[in-house]
Amino acid sequence: MNTYSPEIEVAIARVRSDVAKLHGELVRYGLVIWTGGNVSGRVPGADLFVIKPSGVDYDDLAPENMILCDLDGNVIPGTPGAERSPSSDTAAHAYVYRHMPEVGGVVHTHSTYAVAWAARAEPIPCVITAMADEFGGEVPIGPFSIIGDDSIGRGIVETLTGHRSRAVLMQNHGPFTIGKDARDAVKAAVMVEDVARTVHISRQLGEPKPMPTEAIDALFDRYQNVYGQAPQGAL
Amino acid sequence: MNTYSPEIEVAIARVRSDVAKLHGELVRYGLVIWTGGNVSGRVPGADLFVIKPSGVDYDDLAPENMILCDLDGNVIPGTPGAERSPSSDTAAHAYVYRHMPEVGGVVHTHSTYAVAWAARAEPIPCVITAMADEFGGEVPIGPFSIIGDDSIGRGIVETLTGHRSRAVLMQNHGPFTIGKDARDAVKAAVMVEDVARTVHISRQLGEPKPMPTEAIDALFDRYQNVYGQAPQGAL
Amino acid sequence: MNTYSPEIEVAIARVRSDVAKLHGELVRYGLVIWTGGNVSGRVPGADLFVIKPSGVDYDDLAPENMILCDLDGNVIPGTPGAERSPSSDTAAHAYVYRHMPEVGGVVHTHSTYAVAWAARAEPIPCVITAMADEFGGEVPIGPFSIIGDDSIGRGIVETLTGHRSRAVLMQNHGPFTIGKDARDAVKAAVMVEDVARTVHISRQLGEPKPMPTEAIDALFDRYQNVYGQAPQGAL
Amino acid sequence: MNTYSPEIEVAIARVRSDVAKLHGELVRYGLVIWTGGNVSGRVPGADLFVIKPSGVDYDDLAPENMILCDLDGNVIPGTPGAERSPSSDTAAHAYVYRHMPEVGGVVHTHSTYAVAWAARAEPIPCVITAMADEFGGEVPIGPFSIIGDDSIGRGIVETLTGHRSRAVLMQNHGPFTIGKDARDAVKAAVMVEDVARTVHISRQLGEPKPMPTEAIDALFDRYQNVYGQAPQGAL
Repeated sequence: MNTYSPEIEVAIARVRSDVAKLHGELVRYGLVIWTGGNVSGRVPGADLFVIKPSGVDYDDLAPENMILCDLDGNVIPGTPGAERSPSSDTAAHAYVYRHMPEVGGVVHTHSTYAVAWAARAEPIPCVITAMADEFGGEVPIGPFSIIGDDSIGRGIVETLTGHRSRAVLMQNHGPFTIGKDARDAVKAAVMVEDVARTVHISRQLGEPKPMPTEAIDALFDRYQNVYGQAPQGAL
Repeated sequence: MNTYSPEIEVAIARVRSDVAKLHGELVRYGLVIWTGGNVSGRVPGADLFVIKPSGVDYDDLAPENMILCDLDGNVIPGTPGAERSPSSDTAAHAYVYRHMPEVGGVVHTHSTYAVAWAARAEPIPCVITAMADEFGGEVPIGPFSIIGDDSIGRGIVETLTGHRSRAVLMQNHGPFTIGKDARDAVKAAVMVEDVARTVHISRQLGEPKPMPTEAIDALFDRYQNVYGQAPQGAL
Repeated sequence: MNTYSPEIEVAIARVRSDVAKLHGELVRYGLVIWTGGNVSGRVPGADLFVIKPSGVDYDDLAPENMILCDLDGNVIPGTPGAERSPSSDTAAHAYVYRHMPEVGGVVHTHSTYAVAWAARAEPIPCVITAMADEFGGEVPIGPFSIIGDDSIGRGIVETLTGHRSRAVLMQNHGPFTIGKDARDAVKAAVMVEDVARTVHISRQLGEPKPMPTEAIDALFDRYQNVYGQAPQGAL
Repeated sequence: MNTYSPEIEVAIARVRSDVAKLHGELVRYGLVIWTGGNVSGRVPGADLFVIKPSGVDYDDLAPENMILCDLDGNVIPGTPGAERSPSSDTAAHAYVYRHMPEVGGVVHTHSTYAVAWAARAEPIPCVITAMADEFGGEVPIGPFSIIGDDSIGRGIVETLTGHRSRAVLMQNHGPFTIGKDARDAVKAAVMVEDVARTVHISRQLGEPKPMPTEAIDALFDRYQNVYGQAPQGAL
C-alpha cells in the first residue's frame, strides 16, 4: 500500500470529492445516459489522477468509489475504490495527463450534438460569440481510433496541442475536453454540446454569417482574461 | 390458486420489484408518455414472466400491481395484480419468451427517434462507436404487423434471431428490445433511442462517415466482454 | 348568488379539483410555458363548466382559483374564483360545450410541434400505430380565426364533428383537444404533441411508409374498446 | 457609502429579491447553462439598477449577491454584493436604462433557437398567433457588435426604439429582451425562445402560411390590453 504525505492525502480527498460531484453536472446537462461518460481530475503535486469506475450507476458515485490511478493508468492498490475497474477510457485520460502537464481535468461524453458532428468528421465552425469566448475558434475533429492502445489519447493530444479549443470531437466517437482542473473540463464539455447544438440548428435553415477573425480573437482574449470573478488564465 | 416452491416465490418477488422499478427508467429517459410502454421480466427457473398492467399510470406501478403470466401470456389467477388486465403487448412478450429461451427481459416503447426510423422502415446504420459497442452493427427493421395474433412476437423473434442487435424497430410501430434480464432490456431501450437520435441528427446535415467492419467487430467484442465491473457475456 | 343541489355542488368540487390538477400534466409534458394553455371540464348534470383563470401562474392553480362558467362562458357570480377573469379562450370552450353535448373536457395549448404543423396548415398524416390507436387517422387542420367572436369555437366544432380525431390544429394558432372528460382531453393534448413531433422527425429524413386503411381502422377500434382496465367507449 | 431614503431602500430590496428569483425562471425554461445569461431590474424612483454578478453559479444567486449599479454601470460601493464584478453585459444593460426610460427590466441569454436565428442574421417572421400576441410582428435582428464599448447597448436601443417587439436578436450573439419590469423582460426572453423554436421547426418541412397584417394588429392590441387579470399596457 502506498503512503502519501498529509498534503497529498488532502489533495487526493479534494479531487475525489470534486470528481464524484462533477459527474452530477453531466447528468444535469443531459450529456450522459445510463453509465456512460467519465470525468477525471489530476491530483495537484502528485503523479496521480482520480477517475470514475467503469459501468457504475450515476446514483452510486460517492467520493470513496472514485478510483486513484498513476499516470500510466494503473489503479493504486489498497486505496478506496481500488477493488473496482476504472473507466474503460482510463488509458486515454492517462495519456493526456502524461503529455499535457498543464491539464488538470479530462472529460469524455457521448453528448448528442457533439457526436453528430463527430460522426460526419466535421469541425464545428465558430459562428457565435459564445463559441469565440469559450473555444477561440472552431472545435476540431480528432482521428478515428478505437480502444485498445494509445491511439485515442494520442489523437486527443495531437489535436489539442497548440490549439485554443479545450474540446476535440474524436471521429465517429465523441467529445473529449480538457481543462485546468476537472471543473473546467466539465464546463468545456457542457459548452461544446451547447455550441454543437446551436450551430447545428442554425445551419438547418441556411448558412450562419461568418465572424471576422479579429472579433473572434478579441472575444477569446477578453473572456479568458476578464470574465468572471477572477482571471481564469489561458489553459 | 397456484403454489410455487419457496425459491420460485422469492424469484417472483424479485422480478416484480425489478420490473416495477425499471418502469421508472423509461420515464427518466423520456421514452414513454402517459401510460405507454411496458417492461417485462422472466422469472428464473419457472415458465413465468412479470409484466405491467394495461393503461395504468406510471405513478401507480408498485410491485404488487405487476402481473404474473405464464409463457402463453395468460394471467396466473389468484396472484397479486391478477384482477387487472396485463399490457396489451403481453402476447408479443410471451411469444419472445417461448421462442428465445436466452431472453430474460423484454421492453417496448414508442420513443420518438426510434419510431421515426421505424415509420420510414429504415434500419439505423452503425456510424458511431457507442452503437458498435451496444448493438454490434445496424439496428434492424421488423415487419409491419398489428395487434391481434402472434405476428408482432413472430416478427421480433424472426428479426432478432441470430442478430447481434438486442433492438428491433417494428415498422410504423416502434422499438422492442430484449436482454438477459429486464434491466438489460431497459438499457437497450435507452440506448436505441439515444443512437436513433444521434444518427438522425448527424444525417440532417450530411452523411456520417462509415466505420470499418473490423472496428465495429472489435468494439462489440470488447464491450460485451470487458466493459463494466464484470463480464456481461453475449446475450 | 346561485344555489345548486348538493349533488351538483359535489360535482362542481370534483371538476374544480380535476381541472386544477390536470394543468400540472400540461407542465409535466412540456406543452405550456409561462401562463399559456388552458384546461376546462364540464360539470356532469349541469349546464356549467370549470376553467382556468387568465394569465395566472401554473404554481398558483388551486381548485378554489378555478372559475365556474355557464355554457355561454359567463362567470357565475359569487362562486370561488369569480373575482378573476377566466381564460381568454373561454368563449371557444363554451362554444364547444354548447354544440357538442358528448364532450366533457376541452384543452388548448401552444405545444411546439403541433403549432409547427398548424403554422403550415398541414394535417398530420397517420403513419404510426400510436396515432391510429389514439386518433384513428390524420389530425385535421381548422380554419384561421382570431379571438373576438365565435369563430374559434365554430372552427373547432365544424372540424371535429363526425371526425375520429379528438384533436384539431387551428391554422397559425395551435391544438384544441376534446374528450369525454377533462382528463381524456388532456391525454389527447399530450398525444397530439407526441405524434406531431414523431411524424415531423420521421419526415425530416424521407417519407414515412403509409399504413393500410384497414390496419388503421383495426387499431383504432381495438384501442377504443379493449385497451386499458375498462372500455373507454368512442367519444 | 451611499445613503438612500427609506422608500428607495425598500425599492432596492424588492428589486434585488425579484432579480435574484427571476434567474430561476431562466433555468426552469432551459434558456441558460453554467453561469451564462443575466437579468437586471431598474429601481423605481432612482437612477439605479440591480444585476447579476459575473460568472457565478445559478445555485448561488441570493438577493444579497445581486449588484447595485448606477445608470453608467458603475457598482455602488459599500452595498451588498459590491465586492464582486457585475455581469460582463452590465454596460449594455446600463445603456438601455439610460436611453429607454420606459424600460424597467433587461434580460440576456444565449437560448438555443434564438441564437440559431441570430447566427444567420435572420429575423423571426410572425406566423403564429402567440407571436402576434407577444411581439406584434417579427422579432428583429440587431447589428454585429462585440463587447468593449457601447456598441451592444446602442444596437439594442436603435433596433427596439419604435418597434413593437420587446426582443432583439443581436447578430451572431443572441437575444436581449426588455420589459416594463424584470419579470416582463424575463417573460419576453421565455417567449422569444419559444417562438424561435416553433417557427424554426415549422419551416423545416415547408413554408408557414403568412398571417394578414390586420390579424396581427388585432391580436397584439387585444393581448396587450385585455389578456390577464389587469391591463398590461403597451411597454
